[in-house]
Amino acid sequence: MELYEAINSRRDTRREFTGERIADDVLERLLSAAHCAPSVGMSQPWDFVLVRSPETLDAFAGHVADERETFAATLSGERAETFSRIKVEGIRESRLGIVVGYDPTRGGPNVLGRHAIADAGLYSTVCAIENLWLAATAEGVGVGWVSFYREEFLRELVGMPEHVRPVAWLCVGPVAGLPDVPDLERYGWRHRSPLASVLHEERYGG
Amino acid sequence: MELYEAINSRRDTRREFTGERIADDVLERLLSAAHCAPSVGMSQPWDFVLVRSPETLDAFAGHVADERETFAATLSGERAETFSRIKVEGIRESRLGIVVGYDPTRGGPNVLGRHAIADAGLYSTVCAIENLWLAATAEGVGVGWVSFYREEFLRELVGMPEHVRPVAWLCVGPVAGLPDVPDLERYGWRHRSPLASVLHEERYGG
Repeated sequence: MELYEAINSRRDTRREFTGERIADDVLERLLSAAHCAPSVGMSQPWDFVLVRSPETLDAFAGHVADERETFAATLSGERAETFSRIKVEGIRESRLGIVVGYDPTRGGPNVLGRHAIADAGLYSTVCAIENLWLAATAEGVGVGWVSFYREEFLRELVGMPEHVRPVAWLCVGPVAGLPDVPDLERYGWRHRSPLASVLHEERYGG
Repeated sequence: MELYEAINSRRDTRREFTGERIADDVLERLLSAAHCAPSVGMSQPWDFVLVRSPETLDAFAGHVADERETFAATLSGERAETFSRIKVEGIRESRLGIVVGYDPTRGGPNVLGRHAIADAGLYSTVCAIENLWLAATAEGVGVGWVSFYREEFLRELVGMPEHVRPVAWLCVGPVAGLPDVPDLERYGWRHRSPLASVLHEERYGG
């Protein structure tokens, strides 16, 4: 697939998983794409935990359902009603969760480019996620980034040590197709803004 | 360009800028690719400040040179010697800096998917950067992500308000080509790790 087609057709996937198991060679290509991401000082500070155990998927889905309720309780009126129609995860249906972690100890004691910006390694980890997501789109595989969870719960669930920070749970699995319009727009939660609204010349506001 | 070719040939660019000005239509495609990135609750929380003024480029390059010295002072022996050969920015040569900011106030009072993970909006902003970088690679444009700076200096330099966090300075400009091997590997700073070293099954360490 062409790069721009992948960028334009990528979607956050919740409803479209077919329930098939992702092929091993496809998964390998997605992970290799992630591992090719830019990283500060070439530290490659990411970890990927591949979760398929139904017990772990169930446990995480239960936690996410609780967090959904926590968020729902902050809403009222039209916002509450609109949110009630929105699906926030496909944890069981995708059959594979990829837990992405950030390990700041990777890359030795002097990470080139991180002395002034401590979060630069976290940024590298997110670049790896976006690479994986685009590769999945090109392979006909859906990715849904779940963020209705507490980091400490997820860390314990997959046994990450204290120094590794969970950055994402990605639901990853084959899809029949992806919708043209993002879910949150289709369900009336928000609409996309024009590019011009985020551009500035020379100085912020210019 | 095919997606996988873009992912594999993308490089952090410091030496390869030709000094030509990027064409307006190409720049528009890069920024549109960034603006297509996934964002938590469709908040699209990024800002892009396009900096071309030679005075601002000079001021930022001076600050980065100081921060280079700060980092160099933490090194000794072989590390200091190896680092001395590595170029860390192409601020003037690229002729365009794109300062990327993260605005947590974007997306309304209840950002869907951010109540439990405050940094989710920061992650969205980094996805936008990676989209831009891949699009640049496909267009024959180099991108160098500079992180030798203090956030407060950069915020003031381009007049970002207090609530907007500077996430990156990207040197963006045409290149004749990109090296096959990343700079830090060519100069002996670090080598890339095998994918298997960051993969785990079911649980961390598994």
